[in-house]
Amino acid sequence: MIKYLDANDWKVIESSFHPEYQRSSESIFSIGNGQFGQRANFEEHYSGDHHQGSYVAGIYYPDKTKVGWWKNGYPEYFAKVLNSINWIGLSVKVDGVELDLHTWKVDRFERVLDMKSGLLQRSFKATAPSGDFSIEVLAQRICSMADDDCACIQYSITPSKTVQLEVVSYLDSDVENQDTNWDEKFWNLLDAEAELESAYVKASTKKTNFTLSAAMESKCTVKGAEVWPVAANSSNSYASQEFRLVLEEGETASFEKHVGLLSSMNHDVADLVKNAQDAARRSASKGAQKMFEEHAVAWSKIWENGDIIIDGDVEAQQGIRFNIFHLNQTYTGEDARLNIGPKGFTGEKYGGSTYWDTEAYCLPFYLSTHPEEVSKQLLKYRFKQLDKAIENAEKLGFVNGAALYPMVTMTGEECHNEWEITFEEIHRNGAIAFAIHNYVRFTGNKEYIAESGFDVLLGIARFWSQRVNWSESKQGYVMLGVTGPNEYENNVNNNWYTNYIAKWCLSYTLKCILYLKDAHSVVYQQKCAQYRFKEEEETQRWADIIEKMYFPKKEGSKVFLQQDGFLDKELIPVSELADKDRPINQKWSWDRILRSVYIKQADTLQGLYLFEDHFDVETIKENFDFYEPFTVHESSLSPCVHVVLAARLGYEEKAYEMYLRTSRLDLDDYNHEAYQGLHITSMAGTWMSVVEGFGGYRVKDGVQHFNTMIPKHWEAYSFKVMFKGRKMQVEVNASETKVLLLEGDPISVVINGQETALS
Amino acid sequence: MIKYLDANDWKVIESSFHPEYQRSSESIFSIGNGQFGQRANFEEHYSGDHHQGSYVAGIYYPDKTKVGWWKNGYPEYFAKVLNSINWIGLSVKVDGVELDLHTWKVDRFERVLDMKSGLLQRSFKATAPSGDFSIEVLAQRICSMADDDCACIQYSITPSKTVQLEVVSYLDSDVENQDTNWDEKFWNLLDAEAELESAYVKASTKKTNFTLSAAMESKCTVKGAEVWPVAANSSNSYASQEFRLVLEEGETASFEKHVGLLSSMNHDVADLVKNAQDAARRSASKGAQKMFEEHAVAWSKIWENGDIIIDGDVEAQQGIRFNIFHLNQTYTGEDARLNIGPKGFTGEKYGGSTYWDTEAYCLPFYLSTHPEEVSKQLLKYRFKQLDKAIENAEKLGFVNGAALYPMVTMTGEECHNEWEITFEEIHRNGAIAFAIHNYVRFTGNKEYIAESGFDVLLGIARFWSQRVNWSESKQGYVMLGVTGPNEYENNVNNNWYTNYIAKWCLSYTLKCILYLKDAHSVVYQQKCAQYRFKEEEETQRWADIIEKMYFPKKEGSKVFLQQDGFLDKELIPVSELADKDRPINQKWSWDRILRSVYIKQADTLQGLYLFEDHFDVETIKENFDFYEPFTVHESSLSPCVHVVLAARLGYEEKAYEMYLRTSRLDLDDYNHEAYQGLHITSMAGTWMSVVEGFGGYRVKDGVQHFNTMIPKHWEAYSFKVMFKGRKMQVEVNASETKVLLLEGDPISVVINGQETALS
Repeated sequence: MIKYLDANDWKVIESSFHPEYQRSSESIFSIGNGQFGQRANFEEHYSGDHHQGSYVAGIYYPDKTKVGWWKNGYPEYFAKVLNSINWIGLSVKVDGVELDLHTWKVDRFERVLDMKSGLLQRSFKATAPSGDFSIEVLAQRICSMADDDCACIQYSITPSKTVQLEVVSYLDSDVENQDTNWDEKFWNLLDAEAELESAYVKASTKKTNFTLSAAMESKCTVKGAEVWPVAANSSNSYASQEFRLVLEEGETASFEKHVGLLSSMNHDVADLVKNAQDAARRSASKGAQKMFEEHAVAWSKIWENGDIIIDGDVEAQQGIRFNIFHLNQTYTGEDARLNIGPKGFTGEKYGGSTYWDTEAYCLPFYLSTHPEEVSKQLLKYRFKQLDKAIENAEKLGFVNGAALYPMVTMTGEECHNEWEITFEEIHRNGAIAFAIHNYVRFTGNKEYIAESGFDVLLGIARFWSQRVNWSESKQGYVMLGVTGPNEYENNVNNNWYTNYIAKWCLSYTLKCILYLKDAHSVVYQQKCAQYRFKEEEETQRWADIIEKMYFPKKEGSKVFLQQDGFLDKELIPVSELADKDRPINQKWSWDRILRSVYIKQADTLQGLYLFEDHFDVETIKENFDFYEPFTVHESSLSPCVHVVLAARLGYEEKAYEMYLRTSRLDLDDYNHEAYQGLHITSMAGTWMSVVEGFGGYRVKDGVQHFNTMIPKHWEAYSFKVMFKGRKMQVEVNASETKVLLLEGDPISVVINGQETALS
Repeated sequence: MIKYLDANDWKVIESSFHPEYQRSSESIFSIGNGQFGQRANFEEHYSGDHHQGSYVAGIYYPDKTKVGWWKNGYPEYFAKVLNSINWIGLSVKVDGVELDLHTWKVDRFERVLDMKSGLLQRSFKATAPSGDFSIEVLAQRICSMADDDCACIQYSITPSKTVQLEVVSYLDSDVENQDTNWDEKFWNLLDAEAELESAYVKASTKKTNFTLSAAMESKCTVKGAEVWPVAANSSNSYASQEFRLVLEEGETASFEKHVGLLSSMNHDVADLVKNAQDAARRSASKGAQKMFEEHAVAWSKIWENGDIIIDGDVEAQQGIRFNIFHLNQTYTGEDARLNIGPKGFTGEKYGGSTYWDTEAYCLPFYLSTHPEEVSKQLLKYRFKQLDKAIENAEKLGFVNGAALYPMVTMTGEECHNEWEITFEEIHRNGAIAFAIHNYVRFTGNKEYIAESGFDVLLGIARFWSQRVNWSESKQGYVMLGVTGPNEYENNVNNNWYTNYIAKWCLSYTLKCILYLKDAHSVVYQQKCAQYRFKEEEETQRWADIIEKMYFPKKEGSKVFLQQDGFLDKELIPVSELADKDRPINQKWSWDRILRSVYIKQADTLQGLYLFEDHFDVETIKENFDFYEPFTVHESSLSPCVHVVLAARLGYEEKAYEMYLRTSRLDLDDYNHEAYQGLHITSMAGTWMSVVEGFGGYRVKDGVQHFNTMIPKHWEAYSFKVMFKGRKMQVEVNASETKVLLLEGDPISVVINGQETALS
């Protein structure tokens, strides 16, 4: 753990300058608006260690795959999220000396992310290297949630003596990715122009040919009077507006930089520059304060539905809000071409593409905190990529429309290139099917099955049906050579979770077919023809697989075996591991990890989490008691599932321990990797920990159940959920649980086993 | 198969020019002398597709590892064999036109590798692009086996009309590897000087700092009179001697190029240039013809001991000699720092480093065809690298002197970086122990155990003892997460072969301890102290493992299961695979290969080959009948083991089919990969096929057994073996088998079950 930030209900605060954690802070204080995002880099020049990063949704580059030993089936490229136009730059010279907190003496420094209003604020006092004078700065910025083409910065400078001030406000498209396989540059630098009123740059990505433009208007006010730029400069990748003024001791020069940042994802290339200029104009004409206000209003609407309040535990409160804040600024659900990258807009690691995290962890969050359209976009994203999933399966030898969704993708094509993951971590297909079920369960919108759900389910069912084989020796269907959610096992046979979700997919698809035949017979017939679906023949095989799927078990117990042969391992619990061996993924060679019993993240327990209602409590308990002691939780996605199950089993201490791990993972930088970017997708797991874990929130047969518990460290907590057009608030304290219907028709819910009518 | 070469008992012949196979021919016609080797590139300029390659034994570069996803334990570099000084170059200009068979019209062309004399010869007639004239060329060259610092070329030119001839004889150290991870250059170009009498270049490798020097003397004779060079030029990497003359129609200008090529492996850097010059001088003063003669004499000695004669099947005869020829020019056994790279001096693939091929396939060849010192060098190579093997094991978490020999190495450090191979294909350790046993069995030299054998065995035994774990569930010792010789299975549990050889290593080490205590008690005590060997405690565990090692079996049969769960696969024999699916390693994705039943190379059968005397014939037969039908033989190391077992079982047709596959693998380019270099290590398997397969040669309890069979396509065959200082010739024809003692004391052998005294 690295603790250098202050706890606060609504704010993340770095109260003195920590250059040693600058990269981490840049991640943690990142801001975004679903369309683009920006690491918390300084506006002024900074020569210390840092990672400048500005990212635009959906803009990627197919970086040529790097691999030591090629295997048949590997993809040719990996879609990388692209570091793009630097739009925050303000170069500041005071009496000819460049402001740079790496070389100036920092007398006072505070960086605050106000999660309530979405404002990033930094104030500092710094003395020039000569010691002759100091300046005070207040810098504020937003990526507007109210107008997502816009960003704006307010930057005020107050000197300790009368100084000559030069401020260059600039845009720069000549940027590089930190994450490249071959040190290539990814941008064609197209154009830039600067005038005193307005400036822009335009660039396009190599190969993928996305075009991006940023335009800006820069202003300066001193003593209420506007100061005009005196120069404008540009090259093919750079545009600047320059101010020069004499600023008297104690006077404040206040700069505003209004930016429009647009991509060809949403605008005709021909209009791009003009639209960017319009956006910058829009922002400038409102002024920074107004922009901040509108942005805060947009945030207040988000908080209205999605906030979780925890009393009596400020760290827990800050942690959960931090997670909710980042999820909302990463993905807004307005565009079915977008998804939730594992680092969002906060870093480049993992390529910024789509993983099964979206379906398994993020979807429940959006289902319960946003209108159903948002979740539907996530489903449509996969539907739109069905063709590619079929192609992907064909590359691996599958036929007849079997679909394997990729492990990592941007466009639907597989990007990843580790055989044990790319080709074998196929349970992801199950999560994508489950998401459809989950969506229907929460929204009641069965029509979606007819609309696009069945198409995806059919491809997935066909995949499983071909992926299993009959074992003469076991007299059952087996699934050989897979990697389960626990990636500390590779190429195993009969991973229980994968077999279970495969079987479930087949069952659920059969159920959907019955529904379609009943409710949408014409559509169904069309789809049968479209996909050449031989219903009788194909479903017969599915039914046979459902009946005869093999599942490894621990004899004499209710424990499902993670995979064949699991009990051959040395069963030494994590508690007996020496500190020097932790985390094992940094200390042990890969083979040692693989043959050990240690579990990276919920695997069998992931199945018990998803299908909790299929099992009695005793079964869940026996499995939890068996597996959790072997679990090292070295994936950010691990603790949350364990909170939910531990809470279900009444393991309060374990649930709370796991909760802290998930909720403050990045704030306290548990794994010393916040510098690479934040764990955006696992943040949804934190929300899940409170709502499904402590709140015990489940939807069963169309009825909402709450089985609440309160960690002893908390006085009370409350959260909101949306369900079939209704909004509810759940309030839990030590003595009681209340559910209030805030909006919508009356409904009954079950609170701690008690049916209660809400109106 | 690609058949463009002529069959011949002693020669490999390309009787017309095949530019489309130039890279393959360059590999196939390669020559070497154990110290260096040279692909069959043309001396004159050639602008067509080709791969210029000159390699010097032991000279390598640590190429930075390339990998997509780093795993703990991966090595930082891969030792690459280095393309080094181009010493063959002769640039020829005729009336100002550069001779280049890519642009000239080739009227006649013949390339011949005379394996008996070790001479590479090329003769051609070619017409200039203008069509005005033609020339005839005869080019001959050797890498001298008689004086392994020397190489020499004779190159004669006869024009069809009187021409102005310019010939530039040059050395060039500015060469690049085709096989580099990051397109780096590997050489520091140090120095070059040229005079009319003599010229040299000197270069050193980056990082490893090996220094290499080549010196040359160039001569020309026309009508018996010497023609002197008229110019000498040099840069830092290039040195040339230039001839200019008018050559009359039908007259022949005969050039000789005498080269000394030396490395700092064998010479002080200070003396390197001088010694190279001396070597060139030595060769030049003898002249090319004398050099060729001495070289042929050296080869005749090799053939005297190592030849195999096959009557009635010229392709089989050519095939076996081709294999024996290349093995001998790759490794001579004079230097314990050298080993047998998978491509020898014929290409760059696989890095030219040491694999388990050496112990498993090459050692039997050298044991039976060379004085025992040669095989001992191969054992000493591993002994010298024991410290590194212990370090290597420590990196993977092993302790107390456990040794894991690397999968691929040059210096003893692991180079490979695929976790499933590097960390898991650990059976290689067994082959290294078995080689000690094999050496002792063949030479009777038990002293070697006291000398260095025990040191290696102890490290290996300690490794196995730590690598297994007790399985409560199986009540036996298991070995989890390994890759057997069949690399089409990764990360499996209880690979039968690995478990078996591990158990054998422990048993053999115990046996060696008994011998040492009895025969070398002082040495043994010293070694116990040196290695902190707690005999009682450690050997007790070994004995327990030997007693309780778990082996997977097919119930109700004598079939040993390749690994746990093997019978869960779809057991469809190779014969039912569609042609479009073959070879599966090019047609199927890796996961599909892994979960299929198909076997790349002998795995369980490899164990039955090595430990044939542990099993009855019925057991061998049942296993062969079970596994061979699933074997795709997609490794060059597969067919030979199957020949030996098939011959043992009387499966004559199968044995012959497999024999053809191994013996003419490169000559007929079965896998379309000869262009990358030849399969040097598998060539020893071809020898094994005849001697151990058809010849049925075994040594059991110090007695030689021959259980011969003769393929119906052959009239007769004979081979020679060396055994404990004796030389024998085995002659087999359809009616009888004779063994003649050629040299050494009388001895008894068993021929087809009949004990026979030889004197």
